[in-house]
Amino acid sequence: MHKKLFIPGPTEVREDILDVMKTPMIGHRSKEFSELYDSVIPKVKKVFYTENKVFLSTSSATGLMEGAIRNCVKERALNLVCGAFSKRWHQITKANGKEADVVEVEWGKAILPEMVRDALKTGKYDAVTFVHNETSTGVMNPIYEIAEVMKEFPDVSFLVDAVSSMVGVKIEVDRLGIDVCLAGVQKAFALPPGLALCSVSEKALKKAESIPNRGYYFDFLTFLKYDQDKHQTPTTPIISIIFALDKQLDRFFEEGLENRFARHLEMANYVRDWTRQYFAFFPDEKYLSNTLTAIKNTRGISVADLNKELGKRGAMISNGYGKLKEQSFRIAHMGDLTLDDMKWLLSQINEILGL
Amino acid sequence: MHKKLFIPGPTEVREDILDVMKTPMIGHRSKEFSELYDSVIPKVKKVFYTENKVFLSTSSATGLMEGAIRNCVKERALNLVCGAFSKRWHQITKANGKEADVVEVEWGKAILPEMVRDALKTGKYDAVTFVHNETSTGVMNPIYEIAEVMKEFPDVSFLVDAVSSMVGVKIEVDRLGIDVCLAGVQKAFALPPGLALCSVSEKALKKAESIPNRGYYFDFLTFLKYDQDKHQTPTTPIISIIFALDKQLDRFFEEGLENRFARHLEMANYVRDWTRQYFAFFPDEKYLSNTLTAIKNTRGISVADLNKELGKRGAMISNGYGKLKEQSFRIAHMGDLTLDDMKWLLSQINEILGL
Repeated sequence: MHKKLFIPGPTEVREDILDVMKTPMIGHRSKEFSELYDSVIPKVKKVFYTENKVFLSTSSATGLMEGAIRNCVKERALNLVCGAFSKRWHQITKANGKEADVVEVEWGKAILPEMVRDALKTGKYDAVTFVHNETSTGVMNPIYEIAEVMKEFPDVSFLVDAVSSMVGVKIEVDRLGIDVCLAGVQKAFALPPGLALCSVSEKALKKAESIPNRGYYFDFLTFLKYDQDKHQTPTTPIISIIFALDKQLDRFFEEGLENRFARHLEMANYVRDWTRQYFAFFPDEKYLSNTLTAIKNTRGISVADLNKELGKRGAMISNGYGKLKEQSFRIAHMGDLTLDDMKWLLSQINEILGL
Repeated sequence: MHKKLFIPGPTEVREDILDVMKTPMIGHRSKEFSELYDSVIPKVKKVFYTENKVFLSTSSATGLMEGAIRNCVKERALNLVCGAFSKRWHQITKANGKEADVVEVEWGKAILPEMVRDALKTGKYDAVTFVHNETSTGVMNPIYEIAEVMKEFPDVSFLVDAVSSMVGVKIEVDRLGIDVCLAGVQKAFALPPGLALCSVSEKALKKAESIPNRGYYFDFLTFLKYDQDKHQTPTTPIISIIFALDKQLDRFFEEGLENRFARHLEMANYVRDWTRQYFAFFPDEKYLSNTLTAIKNTRGISVADLNKELGKRGAMISNGYGKLKEQSFRIAHMGDLTLDDMKWLLSQINEILGL
């Protein structure tokens, strides 16, 4: 029995989008592929609210995090850490031989603008890594306020992981002055995994020119060259998912981006009300994510058993991340899920737990 | 009209394999995914003829070339160059800040065992990069003879790109003593692109421990950790293609690997006979590839026009690579194509060219 996914990625993919995955192959150096590329790229720019270059990377978003570090960290990075994925930025920075320091808050807390200002005032950093929506804790960091602080330090590159929030929440890349903004398509885009997207500012591309040892696979200047010369990707791309992305982006515009954001918030509010009634929030209530809710297991239920029962009914939620496995559980409300889906899911949970 | 692909990747994908691409998503941290992983990995080992660890990388094979360099080049690499893809090994080596020298032969010529021995005798190198089947020139380098030379230098890592030959030609990784062998699934595997495979020897994994700055996304030790601890991949994988790979590997065993290799050779022989009759080989005839034939354009035909006409009839071949665009053309006979496909294709070309 298929389990409908209410986990923070991969998310449930609509049947008509899965149908697109069957499209027969085309050559990635053909005119047909360049036409597909030229169809997709402007639509990606639109959902990123950017005029920057955008690149299609055949990898998970972690690959583009590595790319951002290798292309945009020159002297020393500041890694803002509030959970597992923001911590991964730090691991990646170190694994690539770059100098870095961490500003860290307790899991469940948010990164606040003054923390960023205090750290950048030292003048030690030429790049900041930031996770907008920390999937491990359900915190959505205040990106608009932090972006204002970043504008006080125009020489510092602003590297943003919007993996699990892009197209679920409005993220205006140009207005926010984000140098590198990256997303994965298996989250709020509601596509199968395998493709990551990023926007890269002119300033970041210029900076990359001055940074040696950028590698090849995630080198932004290599992406740029193939984008400009051929309207293609440097290496063989995941064509099936690019076909699916092209159709899915059209669906977004049919729904309307603002409507899409509103639907995510509506689902979030429904899950939040239920959480207040029966459990508690894992993260600070001031910074709840619109795309997933992390719930503190105040009733001491067995999360594993709950998920097993849900599985029999055709659904799957997520346990807590890593060390939080049984201390919390997470319900995603992203992608193409609807309010009716959330109502159905929570009624199943109520039935199983006898709430 | 769909154009049947006779290009050296992506190759034509069978309808029943495309059907698998529609499989609904599962979580990549779920038991279901670990079961899929445990189904696929032993089958991949079988087609690689290896007991080494094998890893699934959501990337093109170029990504794993970068991984091989970052994990296995300590002091200085020797890049054996006989075309565009073997040259890419050198670019990647340099782009990752590693020392490297090149032994280069003219395009169309093969790398010979004595060249490797002469270079390694200097004692300067701790790793050799090698392309088995050079897609840009149609040369298949004598891997069994070169492997014998490599055995004289057991401390030198043997890094092999078998991207366009693996499962089209017998490549016995363990017998050949290959430390890192990599392949892409959009070639002789006849799957859509997006996934690359590699085997990594114990020796290479041990060596990686001593090499700093391996990065994260292509770090073999990170792959190893997730393989051992979870039977999963470190980052979100391209699940759709792993589903398809699982089915496709079963099909290989139904056909029989030896039969599969024989079919590739049979198709190659057919195209070679035709080439001798009407054109000439671009590469040295002693080292013709079994998975694609590169043909010297001795008749001065317009390759672009030929392909345009073929397009109207529902087929696509490949022009020469890069600088060879009009000086040669390439016909792939790999993956799930059959002798009947080759007969049909060449009869179409004969008709178009009035041969």
